[in-house]
This record gives sequence, C-alpha cells and structure tokens, in this order.
Amino acid sequence: MIRTLGKKSFLERFLELQKQKNSILCIGLDPALPSQRKKDVIPQKYLLDTDENEARLNFCYDIIDKVSDYCIAVKPNEQYVRGFSKQQHQKLSRYARNAGLLSIYDCKLGDIGETAEACLFWINKWAYDAITLNAQPGNLEQGVAIAHGYDPPIGLLVLTLMSNPEAVKYFKQSMLATKPVFIAIAEDVKRFDADGCVVGATGHVTENDIRSIREVTGQDKVFLIPGIGAQRGDPEKVVREGGKNILVNVGRDVIYSSSPSEKAKEYNEMLNRLKAYASNEKFGGQHT
Amino acid sequence: MIRTLGKKSFLERFLELQKQKNSILCIGLDPALPSQRKKDVIPQKYLLDTDENEARLNFCYDIIDKVSDYCIAVKPNEQYVRGFSKQQHQKLSRYARNAGLLSIYDCKLGDIGETAEACLFWINKWAYDAITLNAQPGNLEQGVAIAHGYDPPIGLLVLTLMSNPEAVKYFKQSMLATKPVFIAIAEDVKRFDADGCVVGATGHVTENDIRSIREVTGQDKVFLIPGIGAQRGDPEKVVREGGKNILVNVGRDVIYSSSPSEKAKEYNEMLNRLKAYASNEKFGGQHT
Repeated sequence: MIRTLGKKSFLERFLELQKQKNSILCIGLDPALPSQRKKDVIPQKYLLDTDENEARLNFCYDIIDKVSDYCIAVKPNEQYVRGFSKQQHQKLSRYARNAGLLSIYDCKLGDIGETAEACLFWINKWAYDAITLNAQPGNLEQGVAIAHGYDPPIGLLVLTLMSNPEAVKYFKQSMLATKPVFIAIAEDVKRFDADGCVVGATGHVTENDIRSIREVTGQDKVFLIPGIGAQRGDPEKVVREGGKNILVNVGRDVIYSSSPSEKAKEYNEMLNRLKAYASNEKFGGQHT
Repeated sequence: MIRTLGKKSFLERFLELQKQKNSILCIGLDPALPSQRKKDVIPQKYLLDTDENEARLNFCYDIIDKVSDYCIAVKPNEQYVRGFSKQQHQKLSRYARNAGLLSIYDCKLGDIGETAEACLFWINKWAYDAITLNAQPGNLEQGVAIAHGYDPPIGLLVLTLMSNPEAVKYFKQSMLATKPVFIAIAEDVKRFDADGCVVGATGHVTENDIRSIREVTGQDKVFLIPGIGAQRGDPEKVVREGGKNILVNVGRDVIYSSSPSEKAKEYNEMLNRLKAYASNEKFGGQHT
C-alpha cells in the first residue's frame, strides 16, 4: 500500500493509517554494526558485499518488509543512522512510505532560528513524516511555523516527559512557578500546535503523569511512547492512560529477535488487546 | 601545525592550543546551500563541479585556511552538515586538526544507554575532539564514562544556559528545589566531570548568570560561548565573567563576510584585548 501525502497533517496521516491497519505500533529502526557492540547488532551477512551504510539500510529494508503488516510507523534514531547520505535517508523514508508506514526521524532537534530552519530544510529533503524536538534549548512556536510550512507538513513530536533517570530531576521535580516542567512543555505543545509528545513508559513515569499530560494537550495530539520491550516499560499503563492517539515504539526487542515479524505481530496484538480492554473499561464496559 | 592528541583530555588540548596561539576564538562552521535560504550561503562557485556535500566540505576547508591563524577551534553545527558521510566528517575533523584547531561537533546529544553509546561510537570514528550534550533527556554521568573511555577522550560540553528565549522558562525560572535548573546542570558538570558548559551570550543571560555558573564549575571547565557576532551577544560580559577557560564562538559574521580572515583577526584581537583588560582588572591592575 503506497501512501500519498497531499497536504495532510501528521495527525491526519496517523489517523488514516491507524484506521486502515488497526495498529498503534511503531518499530524503532536502530541498526548497530557488529563492530559497535556485543549484542543486538545487524547480522554479518549484511556487510559481506557492501559498505556500512548500505548494510544498515538493507537491514532496515528487511525489517520493514517483515513488520509492515503489524505496525503503522518506523522510527530511525539518528544515533544509529549517522553517516547516511541524503539519498540513503530518502531511500529509507520512501521505503517506509511505500510499505504503508509513517517515518519519524528521532533527532531531538534543539536549535533555534536559522539553525532550526537548516535542520528542517534537510528533513524535508529526506522526506521523513516527523521528527522529535527538544523544546528546552529550542523554540517550539518557531519550529512549528517552519515545519508546518513545508508541503507535506513535517510533524513535530516534543520531548515532554522522558523516562531517563535524569528526567525526574529536570522534567518532574523542576518547577516552573507551581507546575512541573513537563506540564509546562505539554501546555506549549497545545498552545503552539505541535503534533504531539514523546512520553516515556519506563521507570518513574506514572499513570498519573501520562494522564496529566493528556489532560493538558487534549486528544488530538499523537503521543509517541518509547521504552516498551527491551527497556521494560509497562504497556498497560501507557495504553490505559495515553488516550486516543498513541504510538507505542518497540525497538531492539523486535528488530534483533530471531523473528521480527512474529515479534511485531505479538506486540501489535497485545497492544490492540490492551486498547480494546481500556476502551471497554472507559466507555461503558463492565468493571470486573 | 599538526596537532597530536595522545591521551590528552579536551581541557589539556584546549590549554595547549590557547597557549600556542593566544586565542579564545572558535569559528562556527555552518555551510548553508544557496537553495536553502536567501542570505548567508556558500558561494555558488563551490557547487559548479561537485555535489552539495563536497561543496559544503570545500567551503569549510577554505574557511579553515582563512581563519586558522586567528582561532583555536571550529564548531560545525550538525544541522548544517546533515548528509555528510563518515569519510566527509573524518576529512573535516582531520583538516581542522592539521590546521592546529580543535573540532567541536555541535549535535546536542540527548540520548541514554546504548543509544548514547551509538552516538559516541560514530563521533569517535568521525574524530571530532568534542560534542555538545543536552543533560535533560540524557544521562551525563554515563555520557562522560563512555566519552572519556575513548582514546583520545571525546570532550563533552553540556548545554547549561542557552540564550534562546525559552531558556528563560526552562533553564532559569524553572527551579529544582531552591536552585534554578541551569545551576543544577552546572553542578552536574562539576560532579560528573564533564569537560565544560555551553553558555549563551545574548539576551537574557546576565553577567551574574555567567559568574554563578563559573563559581559552581570551578575554573577547569571550558565554557563554549555562542551568540557573538550575527546574534549580537555581548563579548565584554562574556570575557569579564566567563573565567579562565572560555571559547567564544562566532559563526555567520565571519564565515559569510567578504573577508573571513580579516573578520576572524578582528574578533580575535578584540577578544584578546577584552581578556587582557578583564585580567588586569581582576588581578592587581589599576581601576580607572
């Protein structure tokens, strides 16, 4: 299924795919070289006839082939595709699009002015559907104006409450007047009409936190939720409190498994079960 | 002058060059394509015989040739060198090194765990001396352990107080217990032994702010200070309060001027005058 984009917003593209494919799963594309670390690396066979870039790209293609029936998005993290050329980024985003998937480039943009413009100039060329953005050293209002000025508009998913241990300090305990910083960021997402939030699913992030963020942003923002799978986030709380539009990211646990398609299928079914249960619980189902 | 690195820390490399070259100037390498924006772009001649990557790289080479007598570092911002291959990054960092310059890759790393490791794996291959890091969605302790484990160690310069308008909210007004967030970050820089801080020089950043950060970190951290030049930061307050080890970054105002070498020379002399004046004022000179 080849996606056409038109001028649709990131939310519209997300909703369309979610409806068509009945999935809230996003697969993290994090191709690590065998020389890079001991486990969770791309198989050596990819490196036999080609260079490290093409090897990583081919690995991503194969993963997309295997998982595209069970998810609606892929998220390459910048740290794993460093060194890709413009053409290789374009090939990756196009391959995802042609497989009926959104592509989210996880680059945590944290610049302003002409430097933020420079980032989005390249992201538009590379043709990803959305990027992640860090509002603290950035400027969200300006970022949204630039990103949404492109055709198709580039989606901006804003780091709102991360699950890294330091986020306790810098996003939760840090207070802006009477509010924790992550609530102030969620308010900015709403005020400046960004496309969504990145909200962690592990460790210190509670059901209450996720619910509070959703209350602030309203339902029409997409929550990208990493940390499920190898990072052991709790999918149940995420699905229960994440609200209507969520995208749950699983990376290593799928792409480095012996059967990525089986794993993706399992995660997809599990998430859909949890979603059905949560929606039943909230909208008229019986409480047991 | 070709620099040899050995196992020297970023600070040691910085001090050595500063002594040799009597400069605290860093030049921002931000090559924008003519198709990217209206002004401050690389001249069309660079694109005549080659592709956009080689054109940007050649522009950087020429800037390095023109400015290397008057500065001790260059700082490519990731947003302007997107799409560079590993080889092109290596060429750029090597060219800087061979010209007697430090190279700081401004990528604002904000990841943790294996993802942060993946970033530093590539930065080590690309052979930059240091990167910038965002401690809020990251993990500084872990980042330092990984970065300093490389030979030569990769320097980490931590976003401490940025001059973007949002930094007022997220770095200054946001309080962690009784301290503003930027002071908490400065404390982490000291505690986890990162190599330095990125401290803005424009807008809301006051002399007091810069002085407070220096008081927390002590003198043996390098302050990278962007915002001078086109962004109209106040070099005087920066040099007066920045303390012993500072690196003042000027980008557009040098690289897109009609004479980058003249401009770099002017900035270098101006900074050295201010430095001499500040040190005279502080260490026994007469007050006029």
